[in-house]
Amino acid sequence: MEIKLAKNYGFCFGVKRAIEIAEESQNATTMGPLIHNNEEINRLKKNFDVTTAHSMDEIGDSKRVIIRTHGIVKDDLATLKASKKDIIDATCPFVTKPQEIVEQMSKAKYKIIIFGDENHPEVKGVKSYAVNDALVILSVDELKNIPLGPKIAIVSQTTRKFVEFMKIVNYLVERVSEVRVFNTICNATFENQDAARDLSLSSDIMIVIGGKNSSNTKQLLNISEENCEDCYLIENEKELEKSWFKGKQKCGVTAGASTPDWIIEKIIAKIREFTI
Amino acid sequence: MEIKLAKNYGFCFGVKRAIEIAEESQNATTMGPLIHNNEEINRLKKNFDVTTAHSMDEIGDSKRVIIRTHGIVKDDLATLKASKKDIIDATCPFVTKPQEIVEQMSKAKYKIIIFGDENHPEVKGVKSYAVNDALVILSVDELKNIPLGPKIAIVSQTTRKFVEFMKIVNYLVERVSEVRVFNTICNATFENQDAARDLSLSSDIMIVIGGKNSSNTKQLLNISEENCEDCYLIENEKELEKSWFKGKQKCGVTAGASTPDWIIEKIIAKIREFTI
Repeated sequence: MEIKLAKNYGFCFGVKRAIEIAEESQNATTMGPLIHNNEEINRLKKNFDVTTAHSMDEIGDSKRVIIRTHGIVKDDLATLKASKKDIIDATCPFVTKPQEIVEQMSKAKYKIIIFGDENHPEVKGVKSYAVNDALVILSVDELKNIPLGPKIAIVSQTTRKFVEFMKIVNYLVERVSEVRVFNTICNATFENQDAARDLSLSSDIMIVIGGKNSSNTKQLLNISEENCEDCYLIENEKELEKSWFKGKQKCGVTAGASTPDWIIEKIIAKIREFTI
Repeated sequence: MEIKLAKNYGFCFGVKRAIEIAEESQNATTMGPLIHNNEEINRLKKNFDVTTAHSMDEIGDSKRVIIRTHGIVKDDLATLKASKKDIIDATCPFVTKPQEIVEQMSKAKYKIIIFGDENHPEVKGVKSYAVNDALVILSVDELKNIPLGPKIAIVSQTTRKFVEFMKIVNYLVERVSEVRVFNTICNATFENQDAARDLSLSSDIMIVIGGKNSSNTKQLLNISEENCEDCYLIENEKELEKSWFKGKQKCGVTAGASTPDWIIEKIIAKIREFTI
């Protein structure tokens, strides 16, 4: 069986940067899971003694605190900065950007719309920068019956689909005098998605590697499923099942933006074992 | 034969306002044709001695100058205001708005894109308010190979189609960090268009009344032609031909935003004569 990796896959710029920061910050605690990948978080704990706090309380006496890649809410960051702790900000610059935009635009009296999942830590962080309440939506339907006002600024969660973002922009421009559109969708996400689309067209099985909570990994799965009947989302090689590969000729492999290369390599090795 | 008028047709708010201004400004000269309708311009000349200058030179010794509904270029307006003439501004407020936006946004270093016809007086006027050169386009193709920069502000000619406007907005948002979208398309245009669409669906002949140079009238013709095989654009009742109505059951009538009611009434009377 032929195994082929997508042209673009895995770690994005922001995640690579955050891991380098963590590796250089021994004994630190990250505020929130640094990235959406438990295996990598365990590796950082084992090799660099970088632990994870899931809330402000859990940080406890830690002297060094790393801000997670997806960012945290504004007030928590201010509290940490006001403490005597050493604060190392690993927030992806592509996430800092919508945070700044939301702060500036809400101060300039624009109604703020964030296209994204209100439960995602990135979105919670971005939303917290609005001086008034920002609206977080995933579809046009959520805008119905809401007074829109004359001036709207819109940003997107970095990992969202452009086409879905533009459905909301189209709805707004038709109804609002001024819509200030900030395309904060990250190119890395696009590139991994385009490559997954291409690869899934010529594969009869697709293995998508990444955290089951990771929205960008789930999107790679959805895109692959459009073109390929047998697609599996797995976090590590233990989840692989030999039966999946029976009768298959071409196996495509891709990975979400939080998946380290060493996990991908282990999985490919295991697939090879199965199919020799 | 049944003759039916579109639910919305004819004069828009800006045109009604300009004509009222002209009727109250006897002996004035309009800078540019006041509206896109020769018959109405002739009526204003005959009844109110309001004449038309086609250039700044033609204004000559006129003491009172009316600024046309579509607006004029910024420098000409400044020259007129600096003269001792009495200047009466009949520029439609829906045209003044994109003029102001283009001035403000170009001063704030946004690259300006105007969706419209560069030869249309409204667009020439709006464009003249940019402190740097603004780009006037009618399709996405004209943006290819043009460096776009990080910040764009876009306005539309008031009479353009929303769907076409959004094709350009979509292209820009995909490529530019910030796109400031000002929906300067006029609702009156939409309403006349929607009504023409509805009426043309149930008509076997459509008479579209308006200036042959009027872009909004031409769009009513295009929309009607999507649903009805026999559509005619005429400026006055003399152009009507009896043969058009042979064997027809349902005649729809609509009119562009610069068409006065008295012309529409004359045309309907003539159609009745033909088909009794």
